[in-house]
Amino acid sequence: MSWNYTPPVEDALFYLEHCTSLIGDEAEGGVDRDLAQAILTEAGRYASEILVPLNGELDQNGARHDGSGVITGPGHKAAFDKFIEDGWVGLNLPEKWGGQGLPSALYSAALEFWHTGSLGFVMGNLLTVGAAETIEAHASEELQQTYLPPLVSGQWTATMALTEPASGSDLGGVKTKAVPLGDESYAVSGTKIFISYGDHDLAENIVHLVLARLPDAPDGSRGLSLFVVPKNVPENGGLTPNNVKCVGIEEKVGLHASPTCVMQFGEGGDSRGWLIGQPHKGLMAMFTMMNNARMAVATQGVGASEWAFQKSLEFAKERKQGKGSGPLAHEPGIIAHPDVQNMLLTMRALASAGRCITLELGDAIDQARAGNASAQAKADLLTPVAKAFCTDSGIQSGSLGIQIHGGMGVVEETGISQVWRDARVTTIYEGTNGIQALDFVGRKLAIIPDEEIIGLVRSFSDVAKDLSQSDTEVVARAGRQLTDAVAALERSQIKIAEYRLSNRGLASQSIATAALRQFSLVAGCAYLGKVTLAAKGQTAPHHRRFRTDLCFFANTLLSEVFALEQVIACGEGILGDLHEELLL
Amino acid sequence: MSWNYTPPVEDALFYLEHCTSLIGDEAEGGVDRDLAQAILTEAGRYASEILVPLNGELDQNGARHDGSGVITGPGHKAAFDKFIEDGWVGLNLPEKWGGQGLPSALYSAALEFWHTGSLGFVMGNLLTVGAAETIEAHASEELQQTYLPPLVSGQWTATMALTEPASGSDLGGVKTKAVPLGDESYAVSGTKIFISYGDHDLAENIVHLVLARLPDAPDGSRGLSLFVVPKNVPENGGLTPNNVKCVGIEEKVGLHASPTCVMQFGEGGDSRGWLIGQPHKGLMAMFTMMNNARMAVATQGVGASEWAFQKSLEFAKERKQGKGSGPLAHEPGIIAHPDVQNMLLTMRALASAGRCITLELGDAIDQARAGNASAQAKADLLTPVAKAFCTDSGIQSGSLGIQIHGGMGVVEETGISQVWRDARVTTIYEGTNGIQALDFVGRKLAIIPDEEIIGLVRSFSDVAKDLSQSDTEVVARAGRQLTDAVAALERSQIKIAEYRLSNRGLASQSIATAALRQFSLVAGCAYLGKVTLAAKGQTAPHHRRFRTDLCFFANTLLSEVFALEQVIACGEGILGDLHEELLL
Repeated sequence: MSWNYTPPVEDALFYLEHCTSLIGDEAEGGVDRDLAQAILTEAGRYASEILVPLNGELDQNGARHDGSGVITGPGHKAAFDKFIEDGWVGLNLPEKWGGQGLPSALYSAALEFWHTGSLGFVMGNLLTVGAAETIEAHASEELQQTYLPPLVSGQWTATMALTEPASGSDLGGVKTKAVPLGDESYAVSGTKIFISYGDHDLAENIVHLVLARLPDAPDGSRGLSLFVVPKNVPENGGLTPNNVKCVGIEEKVGLHASPTCVMQFGEGGDSRGWLIGQPHKGLMAMFTMMNNARMAVATQGVGASEWAFQKSLEFAKERKQGKGSGPLAHEPGIIAHPDVQNMLLTMRALASAGRCITLELGDAIDQARAGNASAQAKADLLTPVAKAFCTDSGIQSGSLGIQIHGGMGVVEETGISQVWRDARVTTIYEGTNGIQALDFVGRKLAIIPDEEIIGLVRSFSDVAKDLSQSDTEVVARAGRQLTDAVAALERSQIKIAEYRLSNRGLASQSIATAALRQFSLVAGCAYLGKVTLAAKGQTAPHHRRFRTDLCFFANTLLSEVFALEQVIACGEGILGDLHEELLL
Repeated sequence: MSWNYTPPVEDALFYLEHCTSLIGDEAEGGVDRDLAQAILTEAGRYASEILVPLNGELDQNGARHDGSGVITGPGHKAAFDKFIEDGWVGLNLPEKWGGQGLPSALYSAALEFWHTGSLGFVMGNLLTVGAAETIEAHASEELQQTYLPPLVSGQWTATMALTEPASGSDLGGVKTKAVPLGDESYAVSGTKIFISYGDHDLAENIVHLVLARLPDAPDGSRGLSLFVVPKNVPENGGLTPNNVKCVGIEEKVGLHASPTCVMQFGEGGDSRGWLIGQPHKGLMAMFTMMNNARMAVATQGVGASEWAFQKSLEFAKERKQGKGSGPLAHEPGIIAHPDVQNMLLTMRALASAGRCITLELGDAIDQARAGNASAQAKADLLTPVAKAFCTDSGIQSGSLGIQIHGGMGVVEETGISQVWRDARVTTIYEGTNGIQALDFVGRKLAIIPDEEIIGLVRSFSDVAKDLSQSDTEVVARAGRQLTDAVAALERSQIKIAEYRLSNRGLASQSIATAALRQFSLVAGCAYLGKVTLAAKGQTAPHHRRFRTDLCFFANTLLSEVFALEQVIACGEGILGDLHEELLL
């Protein structure tokens, strides 16, 4: 069942215009405001008009394997063709290869709308974009000439073929082999699992980026090389089948539109592949792709939160049950109840804060590409923040959405459970949120120069200070709350630095998830504060939403920062002398 | 897919023996320890041997409607027959009617095991037990003679037929009618929805307790009367069909074993019903049933948390991925990672704390029945605590379980997603958790004498004090943490009393969920502390589990108490002047 989705175009555009460097002179890497608005409006329209009506159908009748290959659900191909026709595939890909070359910040905004529309559908495009970026960054000119034009146009699609049955979070155990064939190609053989869109009937060719091991490769993750292995090899003006086979797809709790494939390479004949970049440097090349994919997955979480909010809001206005109280007591629907309002505002504040974070991240990536080292540090830091916070929020919002729907929430026909089920995998793929936390504490906080981190935190307290001086008491109060939260964050950051400097790796790892969460809450609130300040005195719905969401976030969600401070202070003591009990 | 479930018999038994009044002289309402052990052992065996292997099958092939009625899944009937044969149906029902008359505390422990085994299966029995209790408390001797023996034996089953399309949380709008037929019966007509086990092929008769409106009934919830409306009327030594029809079942996100029925009464002929208790007093009679059902639903949450913990523990020992750190670094599985340990301990601590709360509640219900007024106050207070905390925990644990399973977590074949999906409805039915919160703040805290509430909170601080004096530093630390948490709870209770005394209803309602959650966290930790103190010096696995779970709970989960204190202090200010924004 679908609903009336209103893409938050104005919200995103206002943030981009007033809080990032996106809008500006094209010669300096900026984008014209009218162009940005036109693109976001059209991206939102595609989401609301094409994807939203299709999404429930693809949940009920998702992709299936007919014995020889994958057949996508009814309506999938038509929507896919329209996506290509509208030119969306290459939105952020280089103009040289047929893309529009638009910045990540704008792409991030559009992605959120599409993900709200249909996460399972848009999934496929993320992989094509990620593969194109990787080929562009690491492959030879010849491979680029062959693969980029049809990928950027959407004529072909792509996958990331990393995971194997024994190698998921830890890719060091990858067993897939690549043996030189004497020409420039390699015979790639092995089984890959969890390959999203590994097979389908949407395009004439599928380009797999496969992590595999050369014959002379060292053990572990330093012995992995990356290969492009097409389903059909483009040669002699045609496409030659390449012995790449999907032998089954997973029955999943959600994301039914997206086929999750078990892929076999090199069965019944060679699967020819071509090396991308240097031998044994495959993981590094793959990380180019994964970092950008993490921002994209973050927008999945934002989209899920917005989806849950909007659908639940519609329901809460219509469903009549009991008498409410307070300023909305006169409303006929259950929106009149403060508890329902709390749930709605939680979803909306999570969506808004997540949106701000992903747009900040997109902007930082853009500025980093232009050579700004501080922006690179910010992008590095915000990548795990965005990925973990936004995806956790998506699941939480999906669950709150079900709760607002009451008994109808668990009935599939209502459609709200889909957002919860679809969002569930987002905290797992592209690096589990636990891995994001380890990346944040063990890598990002450790490697990024202190002054960059301090500078970012100072930008949060600057916002807090400005908010505190507001004439509007609810805003000033949010400023004081944010000031306190930043102070707690700083105390925790000192603790974490102590753990690092005294080589207490176990302490850092034990509180990594708490540390990432704490930073995310403060960042989310600070960016909501930033945009509220920018919207000061303005009264359009999206301006007022910024303020409402800021105040609600500061009054409720932000208080977790202090709880997390206590957890972080525990260090390895969380588990203390208690480890062995687990194994009893 | 099933796994090796080890029912926590020793955990429950130790708690019952050392922290409740259950074990003791039968003449004084107690139960012999050996009998209690034998019952819990056998209840656990039924769960692990019969239900666990069946549960996944009933998820994949659940109840269906074949056009004329409901057919349960393969194996359901055989397990149901065995349940009856073992005498489980009447475990806590009066001996007079063929039951075993055992206390609620023991029943609560057994229920948890069965719910871990198969929530969707045991669901059905809860309704039979609830209906039997209601008939015993409110119906005429004649109705009791007719209905109780076959219900208590399990020969017949029962339902609660309350909800209608326009009346769920608010039953005031119930439209089903009951018109006197001249004899002692009434013609009941209307449509009820969300009726669990409203139809099935397990028993020869189904007894519906139906809320309906007499011709002279006042509007609203004070005009509701309760009727027993059997699928087949027992008369003339046989069973006469009664025009009760299931016209469809819901396709739900979980709980597929349990048919959720749309029921029509009085189509194509009269559905005869008999009044239970007084006219227009139906809701009161129904609440007898609902309060006990809330304890039962709480055990569903505990069962879900234990299920998620045990299944994930098994997985985490076997799944190899990356190198861990700390005391378990030598373990081959992902259990070697602190982040995984945190997730496992969270699930386990939630299960343990929930178990303590439900056993305390069961014990309070037993003592209240024996005439203890303080126990009645405690039972009243702990009912919303148990229902909301344990069911929230069940969903959270299910989600953590999926997270530990990584990519395999979202694959249905793995089986872990079922616990998450099955648990989802538990925060909704038998009064949503939002309604539990309103009950807690608006009714329980307002009506229960202050000295009872203060006494209960003092019992928490007594535990905290005793823990603080422990020679074992990790335990003493938990005691200090609990002391601080009780102090925060007390400050928040004063705030809530202020809201009440100054008629700030909106403030109370706005922070009700936070208030219930805060009380629950302190209660859960205090009961874990109580049992840890009782187990002092003992070293069996379950003794050590109490201590581990207490310390982990106090180090991590308990800190939320302080965050909630801030939220509670906001009062109606959470939403402040911001209400109208929602409707933009």
